[in-house]
Amino acid sequence: MNAGPDLHAIREAHRRIAPHVHRTPVLTSASLDERAGARLFFKCENLQRTGSFKMRGATNAVFSLSDAEAARGVLTHSSGNHAAAIALAARRRGIPAWIVMPSNAPRTKRRAVEDYGGRVSECEPNLASREAVAAALQKKTGARMIHPYNDDAVIAGQATAALELLEEIPDLDLIVAPLSGGGLLSGTAIAARSLKPGIRVIGAEPANADDAYRSLAAGRLEPAATTETIADGLRATLCPLTFAILRDRNVQVALVAEDEILPAMRFIWERLKLVIEPSSAVAVVPALENKLNAAGQKVGIILSGGNLDLGKLPFA
Amino acid sequence: MNAGPDLHAIREAHRRIAPHVHRTPVLTSASLDERAGARLFFKCENLQRTGSFKMRGATNAVFSLSDAEAARGVLTHSSGNHAAAIALAARRRGIPAWIVMPSNAPRTKRRAVEDYGGRVSECEPNLASREAVAAALQKKTGARMIHPYNDDAVIAGQATAALELLEEIPDLDLIVAPLSGGGLLSGTAIAARSLKPGIRVIGAEPANADDAYRSLAAGRLEPAATTETIADGLRATLCPLTFAILRDRNVQVALVAEDEILPAMRFIWERLKLVIEPSSAVAVVPALENKLNAAGQKVGIILSGGNLDLGKLPFA
Repeated sequence: MNAGPDLHAIREAHRRIAPHVHRTPVLTSASLDERAGARLFFKCENLQRTGSFKMRGATNAVFSLSDAEAARGVLTHSSGNHAAAIALAARRRGIPAWIVMPSNAPRTKRRAVEDYGGRVSECEPNLASREAVAAALQKKTGARMIHPYNDDAVIAGQATAALELLEEIPDLDLIVAPLSGGGLLSGTAIAARSLKPGIRVIGAEPANADDAYRSLAAGRLEPAATTETIADGLRATLCPLTFAILRDRNVQVALVAEDEILPAMRFIWERLKLVIEPSSAVAVVPALENKLNAAGQKVGIILSGGNLDLGKLPFA
Repeated sequence: MNAGPDLHAIREAHRRIAPHVHRTPVLTSASLDERAGARLFFKCENLQRTGSFKMRGATNAVFSLSDAEAARGVLTHSSGNHAAAIALAARRRGIPAWIVMPSNAPRTKRRAVEDYGGRVSECEPNLASREAVAAALQKKTGARMIHPYNDDAVIAGQATAALELLEEIPDLDLIVAPLSGGGLLSGTAIAARSLKPGIRVIGAEPANADDAYRSLAAGRLEPAATTETIADGLRATLCPLTFAILRDRNVQVALVAEDEILPAMRFIWERLKLVIEPSSAVAVVPALENKLNAAGQKVGIILSGGNLDLGKLPFA
């Protein structure tokens, strides 16, 4: 009955992507544990290829295609980490990747995609133009569209981060991942609950982009009221697939206030010596602010990515 | 004949410190390899407890003391990473640590020492005052002075980083570590040459603090001409012990220009997503700038630490 990939598909994904992604380390810090009153285990997807967990799902989707499908290339619209991941995954398979990006996307993000061999097609910065440009490209090329989270293969790939984390620390009491469109969190929930049925799975969502919190509370998909958060990777909204996965597995949502994000980010930079982006910091806040009701427990936290513009740091 | 600890002492140190330090990960990056034209393996001592490799040597020295010696505590003068490491190592052993720091030391460094339980004694910011305060403290307390590098136990501890790196990547062709007083590099040279006699060992030293380069060229200890480098962890000078170790093992020195340090640091932050301090970046420059004559080879690089003031970043 449950929607989404199962544990078998996740293990298959893990084998499929292993030659192409890093097995990222799990780090701990006594000073962070002390502050949180719990034992924290950080799965460092900021150290993943392309600087985020998106490389896992993109690689699984690209390498799941048949040779005939793959030959026509892949396509996505994104200005963020998924775009870079699709570009690199396609390059590793030796196929073209078309990335539709708004004309006002930051130059650094565009350059990252191009550095990985992605072919950027510009659209106007609105949904209608984005979809029109993507549809025209797809018609012309026959490329396979790979959605950033409304895709079983992508979700199975993202799930491999939690799979590895639980291989190393099997007795986690709960696991926290950032929540945006729900791809990472869906995969995390499936993997974690399959391996350890009693584990708590928590999505950390900016209060300023709380569509998932409201959707799960209402029992139906709710649109985003606002997406004005500094955690620019967390502005997407659930789709029916990820909504169903999170609902069926009783995933909880911890809301994070906007002014909690940058202090947590700086704290991780200072104490863990890791460059993480604001979206990753969102997943750290509930533990640091003792909002998990997890005193003395073992808490896994997925640090989702480390891509941000060092020339425009929000502190200094 | 050779000065310094031998491989046996290094293995003993490794066993002794294992419960107290992190086994830090070894990271790689395809984009860095491409730029360097070699295969780079980064030993991440910035992820070590207290944020630097100094925790290894300090822990070995503190835990090598007899119970009677240890009961009187330990003492050092430093305003940097060694001070924080001695404070934490002493706390883990349950003994007092006195740290003599100049009155003008940065508040962040002083607080780090105090957070680890170190007892700070202020001195005037000059050598005479520092030694007078330390001597008076030692007389009063009977504490054991632990020098940051003129000490076999400290050198054996620092050597464990290279030991672990070579356990994971046994076929390294060369290994690069930053060079200041020579403790880390001496330990690295002993461990690496003992395990793999043909391996090249290279110290990276700021051209603006090139006493080791000039000393090894002259065959005798030369004083520092200047120490005006942004790599504030690399301003110390060789002592007779570390000079002899480096000379006897034919360690080479790669000089790094001042304007090469921050771009390398930023590159590591951007590509490896690791917060490293300028001193660590010095060890990266020779590979990035293709100065190692190591095309296609396997190069180990010790990222020594990640402590710097995020409120005063040199870029942004």
